[in-house]
Amino acid sequence: MTEVATARRSRITPEREAELYGAVLDLLREVGYDALTMDAVATRTRSSKATLYRQWGGKADLVVKALRHSKTAHLDDIDTGSLRGDLHALVALEDDCTMERNSALMRGVAMAMHHNEDLREAFYEQIVDPEIGGFRQVMQRAVDRGEVRPDCPALDFTLHMMIGGFATRAILEDKPPTQAFLSAYIDAVVLPALGVRPS
Amino acid sequence: MTEVATARRSRITPEREAELYGAVLDLLREVGYDALTMDAVATRTRSSKATLYRQWGGKADLVVKALRHSKTAHLDDIDTGSLRGDLHALVALEDDCTMERNSALMRGVAMAMHHNEDLREAFYEQIVDPEIGGFRQVMQRAVDRGEVRPDCPALDFTLHMMIGGFATRAILEDKPPTQAFLSAYIDAVVLPALGVRPS
Repeated sequence: MTEVATARRSRITPEREAELYGAVLDLLREVGYDALTMDAVATRTRSSKATLYRQWGGKADLVVKALRHSKTAHLDDIDTGSLRGDLHALVALEDDCTMERNSALMRGVAMAMHHNEDLREAFYEQIVDPEIGGFRQVMQRAVDRGEVRPDCPALDFTLHMMIGGFATRAILEDKPPTQAFLSAYIDAVVLPALGVRPS
Repeated sequence: MTEVATARRSRITPEREAELYGAVLDLLREVGYDALTMDAVATRTRSSKATLYRQWGGKADLVVKALRHSKTAHLDDIDTGSLRGDLHALVALEDDCTMERNSALMRGVAMAMHHNEDLREAFYEQIVDPEIGGFRQVMQRAVDRGEVRPDCPALDFTLHMMIGGFATRAILEDKPPTQAFLSAYIDAVVLPALGVRPS
């Protein structure tokens, strides 16, 4: 909805917008956030810098919108009827290759956030907070179905557990997370901690 | 043992070595790994660059040794007789202030590792691998005592869970981990996933 409204207002077609975002992500992979310039984006996409600034305000907003756009599937679309089903469906949203590409991108952006306050703000507002909201709905449904006790202490840490699975494989094993790893982690850690039997 | 042997070989006293490491960590906090130079270390510590290189080989080794030296307490010293006791003792090794300082340092070093292969190697060899070894002993004792079943699927993920607790609080809440947070996380997530009743 938002994308369509933005595109209409500025007369950029969705196809052109997708092309721009793709070029931004390519540049991000090539040079990283700090070295990425609006000049380079303008050159690469044969657009004027004035257009880019009018449309996106600045580099932080452009990069975060491009990252958000790259997510083809969303948590909001998931409702399988069981917590285990929902968590495994969440892991299946991206194949291993996409996960590896996105994991490298996200790591780069997370690093840049530490010294770019505007990037940090845009990232939390447009990516982290909506994901947290979607995840809370998944957990609330599990509580409503009686799968998880409402006073289960692990409920306060569900996001820490999930993000931990993604992040620590890179830290500990120098490997991107895979669907197989995350599925095993969900059954071995997340569901038992929540008091849900894996099978 | 290693520290003493190194100090003897090079005739640097342990006091002088501690002073050098302290200066390296100060510089690391001030300018970050990439901007830290052996020149700056030499100036700050009134030593010659030749001495620094002879003693440590290079920047990566010097920084990693300084980080290792900053850990006053070690996992190896912990053996309380129960898994819960060991994990809570592990959290209590550093007070919140130290944890916050070290967490910022480690994040900076983790970022720099992505583009400094020699730093990465030294960090894994001298910090990560020994910690993993110590942690495996803690878990093995829990299995030997019959607290955790040897085929418990969560055993494969104990380090992911623990590191996840440290790392994701910074990611999700923009806060350093505290003893209170980590203690609650251990009782709510780590012990239940391992099938150990928290109390």
